[in-house]
Amino acid sequence: MSKKVINHPSDAVQETIDGFVMANKHSYKKLENHTGIVCKNLKDKVGVLVGGGSGHEPLFLGLIGEGLADGVALGNLFAAPTPDTITEVAKTIHADQGVIFVYGNYSGDVLNFDMAAELLEMEGIKVETVRVSDDIASAPAEKKEERRGIAGDMFVIKIAGAAAEKGMPLDEVVRVTKKANENTFSMGVALSPGTIPGETEPNFILEEDEIELGLGIHGEPGVEKKKMMPADELVNIMAERILEESTVTKGSEVCVLVNGLGSTTLMELLIVNKRVGEVLAEKGITIYAMDANSYCTTQEMAGFSITLFQLDEELKDLYDVPAIAPYYKKL
Amino acid sequence: MSKKVINHPSDAVQETIDGFVMANKHSYKKLENHTGIVCKNLKDKVGVLVGGGSGHEPLFLGLIGEGLADGVALGNLFAAPTPDTITEVAKTIHADQGVIFVYGNYSGDVLNFDMAAELLEMEGIKVETVRVSDDIASAPAEKKEERRGIAGDMFVIKIAGAAAEKGMPLDEVVRVTKKANENTFSMGVALSPGTIPGETEPNFILEEDEIELGLGIHGEPGVEKKKMMPADELVNIMAERILEESTVTKGSEVCVLVNGLGSTTLMELLIVNKRVGEVLAEKGITIYAMDANSYCTTQEMAGFSITLFQLDEELKDLYDVPAIAPYYKKL
Repeated sequence: MSKKVINHPSDAVQETIDGFVMANKHSYKKLENHTGIVCKNLKDKVGVLVGGGSGHEPLFLGLIGEGLADGVALGNLFAAPTPDTITEVAKTIHADQGVIFVYGNYSGDVLNFDMAAELLEMEGIKVETVRVSDDIASAPAEKKEERRGIAGDMFVIKIAGAAAEKGMPLDEVVRVTKKANENTFSMGVALSPGTIPGETEPNFILEEDEIELGLGIHGEPGVEKKKMMPADELVNIMAERILEESTVTKGSEVCVLVNGLGSTTLMELLIVNKRVGEVLAEKGITIYAMDANSYCTTQEMAGFSITLFQLDEELKDLYDVPAIAPYYKKL
Repeated sequence: MSKKVINHPSDAVQETIDGFVMANKHSYKKLENHTGIVCKNLKDKVGVLVGGGSGHEPLFLGLIGEGLADGVALGNLFAAPTPDTITEVAKTIHADQGVIFVYGNYSGDVLNFDMAAELLEMEGIKVETVRVSDDIASAPAEKKEERRGIAGDMFVIKIAGAAAEKGMPLDEVVRVTKKANENTFSMGVALSPGTIPGETEPNFILEEDEIELGLGIHGEPGVEKKKMMPADELVNIMAERILEESTVTKGSEVCVLVNGLGSTTLMELLIVNKRVGEVLAEKGITIYAMDANSYCTTQEMAGFSITLFQLDEELKDLYDVPAIAPYYKKL
């Protein structure tokens, strides 16, 4: 038996949902017979539905709440939610103003969310989709639509939630959410792997002194292996690449997220955050807000990602809309 | 070089503080020449000072803020803060109503905080101390004052901060904080060790299929080694021991904290939380609030602790006072 604190692996997702709803029973309820959770206090506004595979907690279940998403559809470990689950969550949160799906750009998710959208359209529920594609290491800039979604989910979901909260109509919520995604740029580095509950082997292998830039949150191959190096050097390299691949430049204003992938400590994330702040200051880039936390994880994988979210006045106003969820707050 | 994302180990604590203050610069400032952080917006009330060794983040630096502590004194990795640092933090937050020290009951901390208290008394600043001693595995019930402090810090600091925020005088803040400590009972389990930045060896050793009940957050020996087992069985054993060693009984009302020690995932913590909730319900114990998060960590150590905080009307009122810090919220 691996040292995961679980019961049977096939029950892990359902028990995670049960534990989450038990801890937050005044605010959320789970759907019967589906791995979905919805807010109890639904408002008359565009519905925001997020989701994806389990195993990356607190993403996505920790992101439903005030000023954020209204419901989450969860798949099994590293697997997309079923069309059925997505459809049920959408119907539950729908308030006659349509629903926006916001999720990471992975083929399994695309397939199932698109199928759910078709089913919902047949029932007269208008659905629009924004796929998060912030990982600059996963495809070149000219193929942004092929990039994967990683910790940048946080900003894109935050903006979708804020736009809906402000009462924007569906097409406007979609417009600003797409803009948020276009303005979000991340890169990660892996130091050591995680293991999915029930598996006996980790999801990738790295040598004792080796790290991999751009390695994905399911173990997708990265762009370059390197020897372990001091934090500042590593941040310099990653920040340089993010700036090259993004529209962020001197005079830009950004929010920064340093996201831990699992077992990388908050101490390390804060040390990284310090250097990110220094690099941006050196480049004449203004920092509006910074956050260092482990939001988008891959089990006990070690490593982190850096995300820059480029602001304009509209996105800044939306970023400032309060958001409260069990594992996120913007007050 | 170990795979810690740091620069030089001797700079890790200072750089952590810099990264923290940079991310939260509107609310906090660091002290010059000391590893201490204070709130910028100090109020005319009893000062609440927390602290301890670094390496357990977000404890303690993540716990300064509204309705919580006013300042934190940090030591080096797993080492007590110096009397000098404690004294400087205390002087900065002191508003002529005295200061309460709240910290975990470890000999190094006791020595240095007591020395600081003497120095401050000589300068006319009234200091009182409450040492958190929630770890039931660290000493028998009749020697509660010898028990160590672990994740129960969260509740005891929460109550001290709330009492000060409400304008209670020092002796009253001390009374309710002591009561909070007397009503807080935790037990932990270790699955795999962490490594201190700069060290090459982990802080303890466990076999591949072995876990240790009651192992401390610095690797202090626990009470019993066991084979790895399913989550529910493990929770049953731990909850039973906590209930035996505590005053919590049928009809009691409690807050629950399932605290991750580092690399144990939120998925696992929520699965544990579910079973804790079920066990308490079976025993006729009322749950007022539940939280599953990694607040008191030991680097990338795997494992968790369960804390029960027994409420009475006064403690419940204080628990309900809003508290906001970078890594904690109670709204």
